[in-house]
Amino acid sequence: MLVVQKYGGSSVADPERIHRVAGQIVALREKGHDIAVVVSAMGDTTDELISLVKEITDSPPDREMDMLLSTGEQISIALLAMAIRKRGRPVTSLTGPQAGIITDSVHTKARILNIDTRRLKKEFSQGNIVVVAGFQGIDQAGGDITTLGRGGSDTTAVALAAALQADLCEIYTDVDGVYTTDPRIVPEACKLNVISYEEMLELANLGAAVLHPRAVEMAVNYKMPLHVRSSFNTNPGTLVREVENMERALSVTGVVCDHNVAKIGLFNVMDKPGVAFTIFKALADEKINVDMIIQSAMRDERNDISFTCSTGDLKNALAVVDRLQTDIGADGYTHSDAVAKVSIVGAGMISNPGVAATMFKALYEEGINLEMISTSEIRISCVLRDKDAEKAVKALHKKFALA
Amino acid sequence: MLVVQKYGGSSVADPERIHRVAGQIVALREKGHDIAVVVSAMGDTTDELISLVKEITDSPPDREMDMLLSTGEQISIALLAMAIRKRGRPVTSLTGPQAGIITDSVHTKARILNIDTRRLKKEFSQGNIVVVAGFQGIDQAGGDITTLGRGGSDTTAVALAAALQADLCEIYTDVDGVYTTDPRIVPEACKLNVISYEEMLELANLGAAVLHPRAVEMAVNYKMPLHVRSSFNTNPGTLVREVENMERALSVTGVVCDHNVAKIGLFNVMDKPGVAFTIFKALADEKINVDMIIQSAMRDERNDISFTCSTGDLKNALAVVDRLQTDIGADGYTHSDAVAKVSIVGAGMISNPGVAATMFKALYEEGINLEMISTSEIRISCVLRDKDAEKAVKALHKKFALA
Repeated sequence: MLVVQKYGGSSVADPERIHRVAGQIVALREKGHDIAVVVSAMGDTTDELISLVKEITDSPPDREMDMLLSTGEQISIALLAMAIRKRGRPVTSLTGPQAGIITDSVHTKARILNIDTRRLKKEFSQGNIVVVAGFQGIDQAGGDITTLGRGGSDTTAVALAAALQADLCEIYTDVDGVYTTDPRIVPEACKLNVISYEEMLELANLGAAVLHPRAVEMAVNYKMPLHVRSSFNTNPGTLVREVENMERALSVTGVVCDHNVAKIGLFNVMDKPGVAFTIFKALADEKINVDMIIQSAMRDERNDISFTCSTGDLKNALAVVDRLQTDIGADGYTHSDAVAKVSIVGAGMISNPGVAATMFKALYEEGINLEMISTSEIRISCVLRDKDAEKAVKALHKKFALA
Repeated sequence: MLVVQKYGGSSVADPERIHRVAGQIVALREKGHDIAVVVSAMGDTTDELISLVKEITDSPPDREMDMLLSTGEQISIALLAMAIRKRGRPVTSLTGPQAGIITDSVHTKARILNIDTRRLKKEFSQGNIVVVAGFQGIDQAGGDITTLGRGGSDTTAVALAAALQADLCEIYTDVDGVYTTDPRIVPEACKLNVISYEEMLELANLGAAVLHPRAVEMAVNYKMPLHVRSSFNTNPGTLVREVENMERALSVTGVVCDHNVAKIGLFNVMDKPGVAFTIFKALADEKINVDMIIQSAMRDERNDISFTCSTGDLKNALAVVDRLQTDIGADGYTHSDAVAKVSIVGAGMISNPGVAATMFKALYEEGINLEMISTSEIRISCVLRDKDAEKAVKALHKKFALA
């Protein structure tokens, strides 16, 4: 069997944890499997490097950021390889470039174009465990080091697993798997044994930090099953895989809350073609990621338009809105970052009418006011006041009997 | 003009120093020169990485040590490139492998085989300053990262200068240049404006830390002039170059003291062929570097044999001697690490008979006992008691009127 494992920064944060991970890898190797291990930078390494940069310049060139930050994973792979070797197993560490991870040239957020698996296969043929630096690759054009940006190490692991046609891709993290909701908010939250790619993608997009959406997307594309589990115990985690409709027992699989949300509302915008385009084109030009967009029912040939973005983008978004206000004929605008987005996700929703009604009822019973609502086939999200978020999550978790 | 500059770890130890170095590089660039800058790891980075290793294993594989330690220079080049960019100058950082520094496969002490200058020349043609990671390369066979071992960054700089046919190679360090002796011992010590390759090589071999012997050897081979100077001021430093005999004014150029010396003496060894071979072959097999070897005059068909090694090798050397004692018929052995080696160096010695006599007289006048003596064409070294070393250096510096 060929297994790809990925260990996050908290799993290799110090020598003691590196030893624990090494022991786990060697134990699996002793069963005769080929193993490629993808690792992130140790705990705080990346933050420490970034704080050095801040003493040098406010606007580091992206290419040099990649040159700098890629050292974090390189340190991890060398130390983990040493710990494996200490246990008597042959092992080779490989940087992203050495592992053949070829990317485009967009420094700090490169995308993987291709993986040249020759070196990896050579190492396997020599009986070596391979430890690969996550988050990094080499750009095809210039031979420069690139980094993959957020979720990069998860993505490296899934891409490697796909390229090597691995039998399994295990994502080790600091939690036991994917939960019905955040156990810090709802202690009765329970771990899901299986979740479909689509549901995982919604959860990941909604901010469930356990897996990055990019990695889930790649897993969907290559039909690569992922096992999300803890590096601190041997409990089985959550299997992310294709799930047949027949198997879907629950209409709702999980409840997610995202506090990194800000809301902007424009009053009495002119109701004519091109107004929405004007607003959202201007926001896109400023690289502001807009999440929910709501246009209210028309009254007097005027609309209210509301949208959400991340709290970090709020300031820039307000500048755009302020500049456009006259052009689009708005009476004014309002904004708030004291809001949160609470969502329920479940592939079973499609075949269960009334899920939305049940959700709104549960929130109504708690006296929670909904500011915005948006839905997808397998998700319903509500924007509500920040202070109501925890109460909302608890109520929904209970209402949908997820415990 | 094409200039290669090398900055050691203390010159780039923190962001403030990195800024200072960047300013200096940009000032030179503004004169229109092409510049390749070689940098070491920042101050304590290497030590910090090694202390992590100690928590992982006692016997790290050499390949993985190189993977780990090469990150130190990679961090430096990225930060220095950022600091140069902040001053508005186009710049590219390159790891050793990217800079085309091709080595053999002897990890942790690789030797440079060749430099593929294509990438460097391309960067120059685009008007970029190039910042290269010292101390590292890529092995021709496996495409793995190698490090060059002690003196590696100096060697990288000289090799790059030779390969690029640079007009000048500047070695920036934390002292003003090469001194007649250690100014910490003799405050009147003065900086040499010019020194010949041969003299510099002897001084470097004798432990004058300012330049590593490997780098000096390479400079000799390629007739590359080196300018050794301080990164903390703009004083002219010491030029290391070919010096015609006519120019040699001084018989003695410098006085060096090395405390990292231990002495072993074997009594009454059998005087028959092969005895010396037996001893020194066995020591070489244990990778013990023997420096001076003295065999006393024969008496009763027996010899005394003494040799020196580094204090770090003493324990292993004693084990070898103890094992061989019976085979070589020695009566016993003695050892001490309370000794030091004091040397005078000067190309003018060749044509100045009596230099040795003057040296011994100076030491006699101070009542210093000599335990071992060894000479080369341009060097005389004496092993004496550790506690006499400082007095010896002062006396010799004065006697040869070096101040």
